[in-house]
Amino acid sequence: MSDNETGESYALAIDAMGGDNAPDIVIAGLDIAAERHPKARFLLVGDEVKLAPLLAAHPRAAAICTLRHAPDAISNDMKPTAALRLRRASLRVAIDAVAAGQAVGVISAGNTGAILALAQVVIRPMQGIARPAMAAIGPSARGDVVLLDLGANISCDARNLVEFAIMGDAFARTVLGLTAPTIGLLNVGSEDMKGDERVRQAAEVLRRSHLGPQFHGFVEGHDITQGTVDVVVTDGFTGNVALKTGEGALKLMADMLRQIFSGSLSGKIAYLLLRPALERLREWLDPRRYNGAVLLGLNGVVVKSHGGTDAQGFAHALDVAMDMVVHRFHERIQDGIQKIQNISVVNLEIAPGDGDSRLATTE
Amino acid sequence: MSDNETGESYALAIDAMGGDNAPDIVIAGLDIAAERHPKARFLLVGDEVKLAPLLAAHPRAAAICTLRHAPDAISNDMKPTAALRLRRASLRVAIDAVAAGQAVGVISAGNTGAILALAQVVIRPMQGIARPAMAAIGPSARGDVVLLDLGANISCDARNLVEFAIMGDAFARTVLGLTAPTIGLLNVGSEDMKGDERVRQAAEVLRRSHLGPQFHGFVEGHDITQGTVDVVVTDGFTGNVALKTGEGALKLMADMLRQIFSGSLSGKIAYLLLRPALERLREWLDPRRYNGAVLLGLNGVVVKSHGGTDAQGFAHALDVAMDMVVHRFHERIQDGIQKIQNISVVNLEIAPGDGDSRLATTE
Repeated sequence: MSDNETGESYALAIDAMGGDNAPDIVIAGLDIAAERHPKARFLLVGDEVKLAPLLAAHPRAAAICTLRHAPDAISNDMKPTAALRLRRASLRVAIDAVAAGQAVGVISAGNTGAILALAQVVIRPMQGIARPAMAAIGPSARGDVVLLDLGANISCDARNLVEFAIMGDAFARTVLGLTAPTIGLLNVGSEDMKGDERVRQAAEVLRRSHLGPQFHGFVEGHDITQGTVDVVVTDGFTGNVALKTGEGALKLMADMLRQIFSGSLSGKIAYLLLRPALERLREWLDPRRYNGAVLLGLNGVVVKSHGGTDAQGFAHALDVAMDMVVHRFHERIQDGIQKIQNISVVNLEIAPGDGDSRLATTE
Repeated sequence: MSDNETGESYALAIDAMGGDNAPDIVIAGLDIAAERHPKARFLLVGDEVKLAPLLAAHPRAAAICTLRHAPDAISNDMKPTAALRLRRASLRVAIDAVAAGQAVGVISAGNTGAILALAQVVIRPMQGIARPAMAAIGPSARGDVVLLDLGANISCDARNLVEFAIMGDAFARTVLGLTAPTIGLLNVGSEDMKGDERVRQAAEVLRRSHLGPQFHGFVEGHDITQGTVDVVVTDGFTGNVALKTGEGALKLMADMLRQIFSGSLSGKIAYLLLRPALERLREWLDPRRYNGAVLLGLNGVVVKSHGGTDAQGFAHALDVAMDMVVHRFHERIQDGIQKIQNISVVNLEIAPGDGDSRLATTE
């Protein structure tokens, strides 16, 4: 189907040209998504010369997509400031569609800095949100856990952390389907007097807020994988380091095991004995299953797929975006922001969101 | 041997009463240390009623120790402010011995906050060091890696980070025996423009300093376990979270494996097949092997053993302390501080260390 811009509305606008293996894995991912979301309509944005033959080869993907031409693409190493000037890039045209109300959200496997910058400038933060935050889902001993911010905001104040908690709560309800997710504030100890003024003040606001019953208090690094809470809230610097350190430690262990299983005959025999269990473990920890970092707090759903993922991984990120579209993620946030506004302003004199959305990554 | 305070000097003063299983594991650990450091002399501080019979039962430990009586002990849940008032506590008397020049360093498995507070107040930071930092050694794919700060300083400026790099360098040379350890500054990306002013300024100073040839630039969370550099420098908040997140992820994986190996008959058979390799992996990741967090930048060696460790773990922490004593750790730091002073002050207007050693954990 070709785009006639007749005012049709789409669930998602898809940047077909972003990512290491675009547009191939994007179209292959849509082929998978077509089975899971047969009624959804997607706006596929990119170079029609490249996309038309791919869609012809993937009739299922073609059936749920409308193609909109965009001649340019934003490379992985392009600075956000340069990306902001490319008005006919696939990512930009996709994001413009969200800003224009033609799509509820956007998904891209492209340049993270460009996605953050364009989304903030074009789609704009929601009323009452000072700083949008990046969130992702990871594995823990007791089910999936949401971690945010992952790097959209290098430095945060108490107000920002409280907003992250509201957004993390809405995200866990929407995507993990939890009715009352527990929330923890990442700190260097679990006692009330630990940490700096910033986390202590955020904890105080959360305790007094409508999220009080769900607020677990401070959690530490090991609580993330232990699954002590469903949502772990922290600033973007710490969250980024925690995410990558956790991934690195899991990878170290996986590499050691690979050596053990492949390094000797008895290792190979043991592998055959354990294959089903090891496959389950591998699947459980599969980065593709956790693909899809989400930029929360904008007037639209914004999902960033890992740049190096495959069709399966892209389809997973698309699932996350669709969950947010279908379960009206934004209404939940708006509701939470309204409730917290009164508490923080009246009792703790934290200034309400001023729309200041500087992005560390855009510098 | 009993303490007559005749002016004898000791390698280390040992807090015999700190930790979950003190004084038993302390004496048992000394028994192990006696084999490794037969010529060292230790000042054992604690309740002589409890210690005398233990020493009688461990003649090897007794042979390297002099007992000094201290009637009080600092419990694990005591606030640092309260601990500072207990002048006859074993930890205090041990730290006093370092301040008085009777011992080069102190080791304790007791209350971390109390150790940090007492060490800073009584032993005092070295000339030129604004903020002492806590460091530890952990496993990576390419050998051991030093991480600091681990929580002694919740917020840090560029000057602090530069000092941490100097201390981390000296520590890696002393304890890991490296001649030119590589150093990385933890950040949310490896590109020069990433992160905040603080890390960018610290990177600039390090590049221009005598550590320039060893300075790798920015590293990310996954670089810690990947072993990209020998020393990873960060603020105490981020370092504490990174350490605990990495440990948590390794534990998650170890727990899953334990379930796989014990959950079925084929798992048990596979375990038998892999036993030697799995034992090596377990030993390699053994927390006892990495026991001994070190408070760097004071006028004495200060080592904190994990509170719940056993005799083996305590002996490992004692090895770390002895490496620092024997290889003259402090002279190396003093040297580094002198070299960096000129650069940072002249070119980047970072104020030199002002002896301000507020401790987040003492609040």
